[in-house]
Amino acid sequence: MLFIPQRIAVIGSGAVGCYYGGQLARHGLDVQFHMRRDLEHVKRHGLTIRSCQGDFDLPHVHAFGRTEEMGTADLVLITLKATANSSLDALIPPLMGPQTLLLTLQNGLGNEEYLAERWGASRVLGGVCFTCINRTAPGCIEHTAQGQIAIAGHSPENAAAATGIAALFNRNGVECELAPSIPAVRWRKLVWNIPFNGLAILGGGIDTAHILANPDLRALTRALMVEVMECSAALGYPLPDWLPEDQFERTETMRAYRPSSMIDFVEGREVEVEAIWGEPVRRALAAGVNAGRIESLYRLISDAVARRKT
Amino acid sequence: MLFIPQRIAVIGSGAVGCYYGGQLARHGLDVQFHMRRDLEHVKRHGLTIRSCQGDFDLPHVHAFGRTEEMGTADLVLITLKATANSSLDALIPPLMGPQTLLLTLQNGLGNEEYLAERWGASRVLGGVCFTCINRTAPGCIEHTAQGQIAIAGHSPENAAAATGIAALFNRNGVECELAPSIPAVRWRKLVWNIPFNGLAILGGGIDTAHILANPDLRALTRALMVEVMECSAALGYPLPDWLPEDQFERTETMRAYRPSSMIDFVEGREVEVEAIWGEPVRRALAAGVNAGRIESLYRLISDAVARRKT
Repeated sequence: MLFIPQRIAVIGSGAVGCYYGGQLARHGLDVQFHMRRDLEHVKRHGLTIRSCQGDFDLPHVHAFGRTEEMGTADLVLITLKATANSSLDALIPPLMGPQTLLLTLQNGLGNEEYLAERWGASRVLGGVCFTCINRTAPGCIEHTAQGQIAIAGHSPENAAAATGIAALFNRNGVECELAPSIPAVRWRKLVWNIPFNGLAILGGGIDTAHILANPDLRALTRALMVEVMECSAALGYPLPDWLPEDQFERTETMRAYRPSSMIDFVEGREVEVEAIWGEPVRRALAAGVNAGRIESLYRLISDAVARRKT
Repeated sequence: MLFIPQRIAVIGSGAVGCYYGGQLARHGLDVQFHMRRDLEHVKRHGLTIRSCQGDFDLPHVHAFGRTEEMGTADLVLITLKATANSSLDALIPPLMGPQTLLLTLQNGLGNEEYLAERWGASRVLGGVCFTCINRTAPGCIEHTAQGQIAIAGHSPENAAAATGIAALFNRNGVECELAPSIPAVRWRKLVWNIPFNGLAILGGGIDTAHILANPDLRALTRALMVEVMECSAALGYPLPDWLPEDQFERTETMRAYRPSSMIDFVEGREVEVEAIWGEPVRRALAAGVNAGRIESLYRLISDAVARRKT
């Protein structure tokens, strides 16, 4: 029997959480949003979604500042920034019923493990969003490209749940594919995130068009992609050789896209340094791979973030 | 019979050329300085050297803006920035007598080769300065640490000339050792220059004390040193294992030293990107070494320099 969640909670609803939760709510599902920054605005005015797949407004959404007010959920979408994972220890328990599933749509590596250590691997699924989504104003989300999610259970025992969620998403406005394993998909996304988010930060806040137009940054992007793929392969997740070319082509279509980590950086917010660069470096080193380019970015970004704060 | 140069010309006399040329002139040698930026000041006021080994003034020095005014020399010290090497094509010929030797004290890789291609390997020697020297004001040079030069002939046939020059330097205030081969010494200096000059630039103009105090930059410095040593070893110039520790200890004693490339960068002057980072990366790749960290610095510095200009 397929798992069909009745009540969906979104924790840490920023651009990604509001977009996907908004699509599901728009299609009639019972979605509750936990958020902080835009809470008062969204309570009053709802959500405005500008999407390359069709704009829509949700004048009334269920928005909360505390998960204690939300009741239990069948499915929790976690779109909190990975740097705030420790706050999940307090945010998740009020939502937990006997069968509640936790689907993390966060960036980088280590998020499924964080959840599994606390609430058990059998409840945990991972999802990777291949999309360009930015918050442009309070309650306003702009979705400019792609949009699909690849999901998989964190352990084999929740494969059926993953199938059920994917079917539900596909029926309700969110293109979703079942991935054979989540780390392979996470590494595939890192092939893009590690170079583009990283170089956008190290360039002091440059966009993808600038990176593509600069021969040095373009060459480093390609070398980083190859290095990420070497790490992924060494860890048991080989990626196809055509992926770098494909990623360059997709990035050309994004025009002057501002990677989310770069926006976080220039706006003085937390940057997911460990999830996107630190944890991949540590896993590569543990597997005996020379990840010198990724390590260089990791160290330089850590320093840039530390200097920004002072 | 040892070669004993009677007339010494210094081309591109900045901090390094004025310091070493100044030491030799102070000891009574016939030294002529070619310079641009401080020419008028030095013609009128001479040189002021503040040195950790003893301050001295040279109120009258032979300073010229054009090498045509200098006559031939027995020994030409080249301390021009490596980015200006193409100007040597016009600067050197007026100084050339039948036996003139060319000793490049420039940074990075490729300078001996540049000279040898034009004036023959038998005239060319290389020297590496292990020192901290900055220009602090027009005609004012500050020498804050170390000071020795390691020299060697570019080809075996000028080993005797190297011996003669080293003896002359040692008798006249410039500590000089004979190196068995110049590339080994150049790579040894790159073990310091590649990380410290590079990270000082990428940090937006930070000094060595900042780099040492930051755990991420310190870790990256060490990893870069190891990578430079791997490149050097693969090219046939193994360096001793204790070198990184030794370099860290020496750098601690420099306190807040500002690497010369960083000063060039923040003051909007040419940065020796190809000599210090580009050429080492190319030689490492040609030797099949993964120089990912150096390559990352190379690309990021190239981009930073390009963005600075716009």
